[in-house]
This record gives sequence, structure tokens and C-alpha cells, in this order.
Amino acid sequence: MKAVIKEGPGPGLVLRDVPVPVPGAGEVLVKVKAASVCGTDVLIHDWSPWAAGRMVTPRIIGHEFAGEVIEAGPGVEDIPTGMRVSAESHYFCGKCRQCRTGSPEVCRDLKIMGVDADGSFAEYLSVPAVNLWPNPAGMPDDLASLQEPLGNAVDTVNSEDISGKDVLITGAGPMGLMCVAVARACGASNIIVSDPNEYRLGLASMMGADIVIDPIKQSLHDVAMSATAGNGVDVFLEISGKAEALAAGLRLLAPAGRVSLLGIFHGPVPVDLNKDVIFKKARIYGITGRRPFSTWKTVSELLSSGRLDLSPLITHELSLGDFEEGFHLMESGRCGKVVFRP
Amino acid sequence: MKAVIKEGPGPGLVLRDVPVPVPGAGEVLVKVKAASVCGTDVLIHDWSPWAAGRMVTPRIIGHEFAGEVIEAGPGVEDIPTGMRVSAESHYFCGKCRQCRTGSPEVCRDLKIMGVDADGSFAEYLSVPAVNLWPNPAGMPDDLASLQEPLGNAVDTVNSEDISGKDVLITGAGPMGLMCVAVARACGASNIIVSDPNEYRLGLASMMGADIVIDPIKQSLHDVAMSATAGNGVDVFLEISGKAEALAAGLRLLAPAGRVSLLGIFHGPVPVDLNKDVIFKKARIYGITGRRPFSTWKTVSELLSSGRLDLSPLITHELSLGDFEEGFHLMESGRCGKVVFRP
Amino acid sequence: MKAVIKEGPGPGLVLRDVPVPVPGAGEVLVKVKAASVCGTDVLIHDWSPWAAGRMVTPRIIGHEFAGEVIEAGPGVEDIPTGMRVSAESHYFCGKCRQCRTGSPEVCRDLKIMGVDADGSFAEYLSVPAVNLWPNPAGMPDDLASLQEPLGNAVDTVNSEDISGKDVLITGAGPMGLMCVAVARACGASNIIVSDPNEYRLGLASMMGADIVIDPIKQSLHDVAMSATAGNGVDVFLEISGKAEALAAGLRLLAPAGRVSLLGIFHGPVPVDLNKDVIFKKARIYGITGRRPFSTWKTVSELLSSGRLDLSPLITHELSLGDFEEGFHLMESGRCGKVVFRP
Amino acid sequence: MKAVIKEGPGPGLVLRDVPVPVPGAGEVLVKVKAASVCGTDVLIHDWSPWAAGRMVTPRIIGHEFAGEVIEAGPGVEDIPTGMRVSAESHYFCGKCRQCRTGSPEVCRDLKIMGVDADGSFAEYLSVPAVNLWPNPAGMPDDLASLQEPLGNAVDTVNSEDISGKDVLITGAGPMGLMCVAVARACGASNIIVSDPNEYRLGLASMMGADIVIDPIKQSLHDVAMSATAGNGVDVFLEISGKAEALAAGLRLLAPAGRVSLLGIFHGPVPVDLNKDVIFKKARIYGITGRRPFSTWKTVSELLSSGRLDLSPLITHELSLGDFEEGFHLMESGRCGKVVFRP
Repeated sequence: MKAVIKEGPGPGLVLRDVPVPVPGAGEVLVKVKAASVCGTDVLIHDWSPWAAGRMVTPRIIGHEFAGEVIEAGPGVEDIPTGMRVSAESHYFCGKCRQCRTGSPEVCRDLKIMGVDADGSFAEYLSVPAVNLWPNPAGMPDDLASLQEPLGNAVDTVNSEDISGKDVLITGAGPMGLMCVAVARACGASNIIVSDPNEYRLGLASMMGADIVIDPIKQSLHDVAMSATAGNGVDVFLEISGKAEALAAGLRLLAPAGRVSLLGIFHGPVPVDLNKDVIFKKARIYGITGRRPFSTWKTVSELLSSGRLDLSPLITHELSLGDFEEGFHLMESGRCGKVVFRP
Repeated sequence: MKAVIKEGPGPGLVLRDVPVPVPGAGEVLVKVKAASVCGTDVLIHDWSPWAAGRMVTPRIIGHEFAGEVIEAGPGVEDIPTGMRVSAESHYFCGKCRQCRTGSPEVCRDLKIMGVDADGSFAEYLSVPAVNLWPNPAGMPDDLASLQEPLGNAVDTVNSEDISGKDVLITGAGPMGLMCVAVARACGASNIIVSDPNEYRLGLASMMGADIVIDPIKQSLHDVAMSATAGNGVDVFLEISGKAEALAAGLRLLAPAGRVSLLGIFHGPVPVDLNKDVIFKKARIYGITGRRPFSTWKTVSELLSSGRLDLSPLITHELSLGDFEEGFHLMESGRCGKVVFRP
Repeated sequence: MKAVIKEGPGPGLVLRDVPVPVPGAGEVLVKVKAASVCGTDVLIHDWSPWAAGRMVTPRIIGHEFAGEVIEAGPGVEDIPTGMRVSAESHYFCGKCRQCRTGSPEVCRDLKIMGVDADGSFAEYLSVPAVNLWPNPAGMPDDLASLQEPLGNAVDTVNSEDISGKDVLITGAGPMGLMCVAVARACGASNIIVSDPNEYRLGLASMMGADIVIDPIKQSLHDVAMSATAGNGVDVFLEISGKAEALAAGLRLLAPAGRVSLLGIFHGPVPVDLNKDVIFKKARIYGITGRRPFSTWKTVSELLSSGRLDLSPLITHELSLGDFEEGFHLMESGRCGKVVFRP
Repeated sequence: MKAVIKEGPGPGLVLRDVPVPVPGAGEVLVKVKAASVCGTDVLIHDWSPWAAGRMVTPRIIGHEFAGEVIEAGPGVEDIPTGMRVSAESHYFCGKCRQCRTGSPEVCRDLKIMGVDADGSFAEYLSVPAVNLWPNPAGMPDDLASLQEPLGNAVDTVNSEDISGKDVLITGAGPMGLMCVAVARACGASNIIVSDPNEYRLGLASMMGADIVIDPIKQSLHDVAMSATAGNGVDVFLEISGKAEALAAGLRLLAPAGRVSLLGIFHGPVPVDLNKDVIFKKARIYGITGRRPFSTWKTVSELLSSGRLDLSPLITHELSLGDFEEGFHLMESGRCGKVVFRP
């Protein structure tokens, strides 16, 4: 089969013919119909410090997908051939204290599809049966592939009730754009999006943002304060991983406001905890992964009911053979989600 | 001024010329621009046992409205003449344990506008300044008048997160219809409405219901089970006050589901607590009033942002002189909200 | 091995010599050191309608225990021989929607140890490895056996924050007594216990109740109102399964109060939802089972830290041969927890 | 009357004879029986940058007290002479969005007793009636005076359920010590306290800490990891305002853990949000003030029921004339709470 592989340390990826995987005990073989590209895949392509410190090569990458069950491995029951599925990409151990007390998304021994195990940028993929999520009948594969990252967006937006709230979202990459869509679907009343990329601000408007702003050209603070009658925002969702965005957002947060952090920073960042957190009685939620599988249930229902329409977000669909173009698009910032069609 | 008055014990109301009220200490005189009719007003009109046991006559009735500040009474500061306002109709004492610990909506010494004090079916109304809610600039008065009952709907729908949930709403009177609109605006993925009134089922569809059903003609249980793939509903909102609706809804509730109760019953009702609550690990929320004023903030933002469009719900606007027609409409069930325009 | 068995339909149990079970795939063989008696065991002994409708015989009964791992069955790793363990008695399927979205305690396909599978009133027991909970080093086996029911008490008491609250507990059987102990350990400030059994009221005082009352002899309403300065109770925990206790407790509930229901009723009960739930804006929590395993973590830490001392609750320890005496004690009401020592 | 006054800019305080205040509209004159010293008072005494930037002189300082109502000002009803009271020291406006939506503790226009208005280190004090809290009959004045700061501790400890949790508290000044007591009273199972002051570690043990550690002499990380079997702590309460304590505590926090921040830092601090918050899916709660008056209710009940015994924390009681000794003690760190007896 064709697969996009990180063959060894260093930048770049290659398309190779490799054997179709054989599902092990408790695993299921899936034929991949759509596999979307995540920012993490770009970090692996570019061999970022994080990738260099974490990955063992060779490795088929990719961790978002939708496909069809081909074969169940030993010990797997109740997973019929032909079932349309996506999967939680975090393989949790099920045995650590975090797994056993309801937080498998922060498992002590987490393995990640496409990082610690072979991934979805391939024609076939073997996945633990316990990680599968059945896709609704009418959901197209490309949208179904977005459920995994959409889960992060749902947990970010809904850390607390969003209805009737003024919301600031810093960062309009694919994750930020999904947060816009979720906030809109769940009743946020005023969605302000800040990003220096004009193309993505256009997508943000399309996904439902009320106000989009390039913080290089305009004062985010002035715009947001004016839009909230001087109150500041009730909710601040940080998706950019930029220290300046964090500082600006925290300053804009109204007293008693809420912050959710999804963007990954380049390192430790200075935070004025007194002024921005303690004296405001703010709550901050760190978000990683998705709750398996209560978040998947929400994601799946929001999508299949049409309450949330992510179609405008899928700007490019490519064959696996054109994978380099997909990565170029992601680095250029002139795209929403890029989906591979193996 | 003209006012709709319950003059003494017994059915009926009359339109009378009465003196414009003089705002007392801490009160504000408001010119009423729109005043909507609630089911409670119908109970007072008909002199139900509840009304007979509670009301002291004569009394100007009505407790939902939008208007304009005319004059501030002694001791009132910061409420400018001309300010457009609605008001929390529950006058809470501010001194009992419930008021002081964050639950004024269940104040021990609650007075209700239009029941324990003169109300809004009049050209002018005097209201405690502390109960006022400023209306956003662009919000029409008839919609602004609906904020008070909409607050009940928001607290009912959002007792827990509604996003991505299958929801059953029993009862499609004005309150049920508002719950449909709120559930839709806040991300409920499958909204099933049950009511024997065909006209109101039509309104339910218009407000965003996915499935509407007359339980006399069809099996609510079969329809809801089929619509949820046999799972039952995640959320059950009881707005009808009918024991059969309660029983049917509880039976349909999925394990781990949530119930909110807003409808008032005719008396004690039998509940199969073992099967329907305990073994399902269900949560039940009794809903009364609205949280002053966090619910008002949500309501006001949902309406003014256009996330929630209640225009289709206002089916009739009448002058005060035609008040009897409004009550006839309410009793016929062939209306959404009826709004008086004094 | 010796085991207490329900051999066929009808009242009574027998002690028999039966083969030691062989652990199946995913199971672990445990040597039972202590096995406590639950009210459900009494229902099975007496062949209540519930038992008659649910049980398939023959069956070794009992579902609370502490023991030591003897042998791991096929496919079980990481469970060393000699490990001291108790176990979640609810065998959840892991596949239904409830299991997958974080509520395995209301699994659609629940099997219960000692009811649907052989139980703990025996020298040995085979248990699914996934259900095991490791017992802390210093925790005596008899106390460790109480973790399972203590989990119900923890979920009942802590459905919402209990600190600084006035609490009414109706029913002082072993479950009610555990609720007293948990409420005391978690900061409830005023614990009122109602039960007609004087012996158990004595135990309630020993476990930390502030006020104990026999509702036959005294007016529960008057005593509780006087103890709360007329406010009523903030929290009502119903453990008796008696309709009169429910009615009395709901009437005593303060506005904005909280109710948790653990006691099983004889059938549907009348509830004045208007007065007791809706107009009070009350929340009602149905409680069944325990959250696997976040509740177990809390239970285990409360016990092993000594914050919670259940020793006074264990009033009788008996050999399996004296099992009939244990059941007689339970039916007499003149005991706390009865523990068998196989 | 005698009063401790900041007469003008610069360090130091003086005891002066000043006129007894006359209660204004909505105010109540209280005779002070006990007034405890807070770290903020020390900042004012020393004329810290915060004090220099905030205070207008002259000002009677002090904001924790218990006393007796002497006289009600104009417009105050229902506050009888002789009533024993303490008071919320944050005078909230009641009109801003935060006040109206349930968060008066972060009022936009907050005035603080002893900072923006004359305070409690005096024989008499005038307080807004709406800020009064009635003290229970049997509660001694010195303990009643501690309710105000104890409220901060309750909100810090109970931001989420503390029962059965491993807790790290950094900082064992009076606020940290109160957190120890509250954590103990509410069921925390393992309380680890870190502070370089040996005297206060002794008090921490007395208040219920399980492990106390001087982080200069021992490795906090090693001790806490060993005490939690390598899991890290479930809950981290930062009370010291030291950047190193924050960093150490965040590093010790277990995945899915919770942080509450009460200590005020010297300025912005670096935070490794990726590793310590996002990848751990941690929640951080900024704590300021207390919820008026739901926190007061909890505080008052915990104290008056004896669940929480703060007597060992009151190490010194002094006359107002000896106020300088009180401040010396506070700066030396060789005290718990210092209480003035005017």
C-alpha cells in the first residue's frame, strides 16, 4: 500500500510502498477514505525540536481520518466488516490512575497515532478496537475525519457554558476556526477573532465570527473593548500559542471571566497572575485531547445534525501522492483543513 | 391611565381609568410600550384556585413588559429618564438566607409583579429600580417584553450543557416554544416536541424542532425511541404540567440523563423513582423564575445578537382595549405569545 | 471450597462444598478474606419479588469483599499474585453509549457480582481484572470490604458540595450510617438522622450525627426546623426507601436545596413536584453504584487516611458457617455491618 | 475613640483619639470587640508600592472584625441594636455587570474597608448594613473576626471537591494555615505544607497538616512525590505568592489536577503553560475575596459547629495600644493570627 513516511531523523517525508498492516490482538484493520492534516503533522514534517525529541523512525504519520473496517484482529468482537469509523488518536493505557479515574486523555502512558504508532496517511491503518468511533450513516468521510480535532475545539469552547457570552478567540488556524464554528453553534453571542492572516480571517467570518481583526493593523484591545461596551470579554480562547496574544487576551478578560488554553507556546511565558487571574477571579482551563468518548458523542451529533457546518473549512482535498502540496499549503497559511484521499 | 384590573374575587377582568402610579422610594415610573401575556395571567383571569388563594384585589395584572423610564422615585440614582427597560418581575427581599446566598429567585418573601403589586397591563407601571434591566438599543419592545419568560426557558434548557444532546420537550405552549428556540440556539442536536395542539406543533417546527408529535395520534415512545436509535433522550424538559407527559418523558430518558421541570402540575404526581431516577442516575432540576441577573444577561445577548429569533412566536399584538381577545386567544391555544400595546 | 449458595427459587440459602472457580480470560482468582453483607443479599435470601424476577440459580451470592490475588487468568497482565484487592461489583460492558461516555455505573448491559455471576460469600472468587481495586497496604480486610457500599455513600453525600451544610438523612441502616460518616468527614455542619430503630440511632451518633430522632416518637419536622432556625435543611439524603420519609424530607428541604436519593422504594411514590421541587428550585440526584473508579479513589483515600473511621460500624464478624446468624442480625436491625470471614 | 491611623504617605501608623463615626444612610455603627490583622495591613503599615499607589490618607485601617451593633443609620431597618456582627470588607456597588450577574466579589467599583473607607482598628466602625453578617450566639468574638479571611480559604480549598484528595499548600502564613484547617475539615486525605518558617510549620501540623516541609532544607519535590506514590498532588493551593513555589507546585501537580491561586506575586511570573497546564488538562482558579454571602454561610457553619477549630491559630491578643507589637509579630513570622481587642 502507499503510505507517507518519516523514514529517519531530519526534515521531509516520503511516499513509499509498504505492506498492509496486520491487525494485532484487540486491533482492527481500517481502509482509510479521508485523512486530514494537523499542525502536529507539519511539526513532524519539518522535524521540529518536539518531533526530534519524541519520534522513533521509520513511522507512517497522520492521526485524523475516516474509513471502513476491513478486518478485526484476534479477540475483537462486535466490530463488523464494512463499519464506517473514525478513531480517538490517543491510545490510553486504561491502567494508570488518570485512566481509571475518568481522565484517559491525560493518561500517564499515552501513545499517539502517527507519532508512537503508525498513522493514517496511508491506504490502510491498524487501530485498537477500543479507540474506534462509529460514524453516522450520512456523514461524508472528509467531515468525519475532522471529528478528532473538532473534539479539541468542543472541549475548549465548552469548558464552561458559552451561551450568551462575548468570546475572544486568538488564532484562526484550523483549530481556531473550529472553535468559531462551535462557539456559534452553541450560542456564543459575540465572537471576536484575532489573527494576522487575512485569508484565515475570511474563513473565520465564513464560520460565524462577528468581528475579525488583524492585530498588526488594528488595536485588538480597542476593537474588543468597543464591541463589549467596555466590559471586556466573558470568555477568552487562546489557540495561537503566542505570548502576545495570551497577554492581550488576558488583559481583555472581564472580571469573573473564563479562559481556555489550547495553543501550544514556544516555552514558558510571563503571566501577570495578580491582575489577570487572581484579582479577576478568573478560571483557566488547559485543554488537551478530547474526552473519550463523551466529547466524540457531542462532536458527532453536532456535525451529523447539521448544527455545525464545517464544509467551508475543508479548502483542499488531495491524493496521497500530492502530500507535499498539502504541507506547503499548511505552511503558507492559505488554507483551512487539507484532506488527503488515499 | 388605562389599566386591566382584577377588581374583586371571581372570574374576569376589566379595563378601567386609574391614576398614574407615583413611584415610591427606590422605585421608578415606567411608560409601558409592550406587555406580553403569560399563562399565569390566564389563571388570574379565570380565577383559578391558585389565584383565589393568593391574590388581594383590586390589582392591575401583567408581569412581562418593555418600556421607557419616565421618572425616578426618591433615592434612585443612575436611572436616567428615557432609558429603555424591562424588569425582573420577582421582587425579592434581599435579606433572607436565600437572597443572601445567591438564590433570590427563591426568596422567602417573594412579591410578584401583577400578583402582589400592580403590574404591566397598563399605560404606566412603578417598579423597584433594583429590578430593572436595561434593554439593548436595537431590541424592539415586543421582543424585549419576552425576556422575562425567556429567562425561565434559558434556565430550563441550560441547567446542564445542552450541546450535541437529544432533547424531548413535552408541552408546546409559549414556554415550551421558547425552550425549543433556546435549545436550538445552544446546540441541541435533536429536538423532539410533543403536544396535542397541532397549531402549536407548527410553531414548534418554526422555532427549530426536528420532530413534532401529537401524542394522541402517535406513540411518543416509539417515535422518540426510533429518533434516538433506541437510546432514549439525553435531556427531558417537562413544560406541560401533565402527569402523563412526565411519566412518558421519564420513561424515555436514557440512563445518565437529565430532567428539567418547568410545567406546574395539578397536584402531587406519582413518580417511579427507582426505575426512572435512581437506577438511571438521573438529575432533576426544578426551575422557577430566573437568576437575577445572570440569566437576564444571557437572554438579552441571545436575543440582541440574533442567535435566537423569537419573532415567529409573537403571533398577535393588541391594544389594551382588546385585552379580552388576547385572553380568548390564549385559552384557545391558537396563538404563540400575545402582546398588548398600551 | 465452602460457599453460600441460592440453590433454586424460593427463600433460604445453603452452605455447600463447590469447586474453586477457574479464572476465565480477563479474570483473576481471588482468595476472599472478608465479605460484608448488603441489604440486597437479604432480599436474595428472602426471595423478594425483585430477586425472583432477576436471579438465575444456582448462584453463589455476595458482592462486597476484600481478598488476595491467587492467580491471573488468560490475557491478564500486571496483576501480581498476592496483591490485596477489592472490586467494583458492577460488571459493565464497556461498549454501550453509557459506558463509552463516562457513565459505566448505568451500563445498558450491567452484570452484578453475586446476582448475575458468582459472588463473594465463598472462599474463592473469580473477578474481571478490569474491576479490581488495589487495597492500600495498611487497610484491614474488613474495612476494605466496605469500600464498595461506601462508594454509594460518597456519591450520595457529595453529589454537590456538603461543607457547611445542614443535612437530613432519613434511614440509619448501614448505608445511612455510612452517609453520616462521609458527611461528617467532608464538613457537613449539622447532621440530622431519622430512623425508627433506636439501636441504629445509637450507631448514627457514634458515626457523627449531631441530632438523631425516632420519627414515631418525635416530630421530625419540628426537630429539624428548630435545629435549622426555621430554615429547613440545605441537603436531604433519602436512604430509607420509605414514601413517608421522602415526603417529610422534601417538605423540610429549604428553597434552593439539594436532594440525593439512594433508598429503593416499594413502587411509584407521589411527589408534590410544584411545592417541593419546582418552586424550591431544588436539584434531585438519583444515585446508583459508584463511579468506577474516581469514587473508589476517594473512598480508598478517606478510609486509609483515617479521615473516616468505619470501625464502629462493623458490629459483627462471623465465619461463613454462621451465615444464617448474619442474615438474622440484618433482618433484626440490631447490627451495623456484618462481615463474613471465609 | 482610639483608632490606628495611617496619617499620611510613608511607613508607620499612629494611635489617635478621633471622633466616633456617625453612620450615614444605609450604614450601621458597630462597637468593635475583636479585630484581626491581615497581611494587607502590614503592607499598609510598611507603605508598600501597592499601598502608596492605592491609599488616600488619613485612614483608619483594619478590615477583619467582630462587634456589636450600636446604632442604625437612616434608612436601615431590621438591624437591631446589640446584634453581634462581622462584615464583608468588600463594599460592592451592586450596579456593575459583575455585581448584577452574581460576582460582586469582583465588582468594578469595589471599595475596601480600611483602605478606601475607615476600618476596624478602632473602638467603633461604621459599615454598610448590606455588608453585615450576623454572628452565631456561641461564637467568640476573636474567632468571629477570622470569618472574613477564612472565607478566602474556603473559596480556595473548595474551588472543586477536596474530599479524598492529595493536597499541596505552599505558604503557611495565616491564610495558608486556614487553608490547612479547611482542607482537613472538608475531607482532604493528605495535606502537604511547604514553608521555610519552622514556627509556622509547627502551626500547620497543629491545624491538621499530614506532612510539613521546609523547602530550603529538603526537596519538596521528592517528599511530595514519595508521599503520593509518584502520582503528584491532585490539588495545589498556592498561598505564598512566590514564583519558585508556584513553579514547584505546578511541576508536582498530577495530570487532571486542580490549582487555586490566592497568594499575590511580586509581578508577572513565568509559567510553563504547555507542560504544567495544557498537557495536564489542569484547571486554575484565581481567588479573591469571598462570595457574599454563600461563602460566609459556609464559614460561619464550619466554625460554629466546631468542625473547624481555629483557636490554635490565634496566637496573640493585644490591646489597640500595643498595635506596634502586633505588626512586629506579623513581620517576624512568629505568630498565627494577631487579634486586637479595642
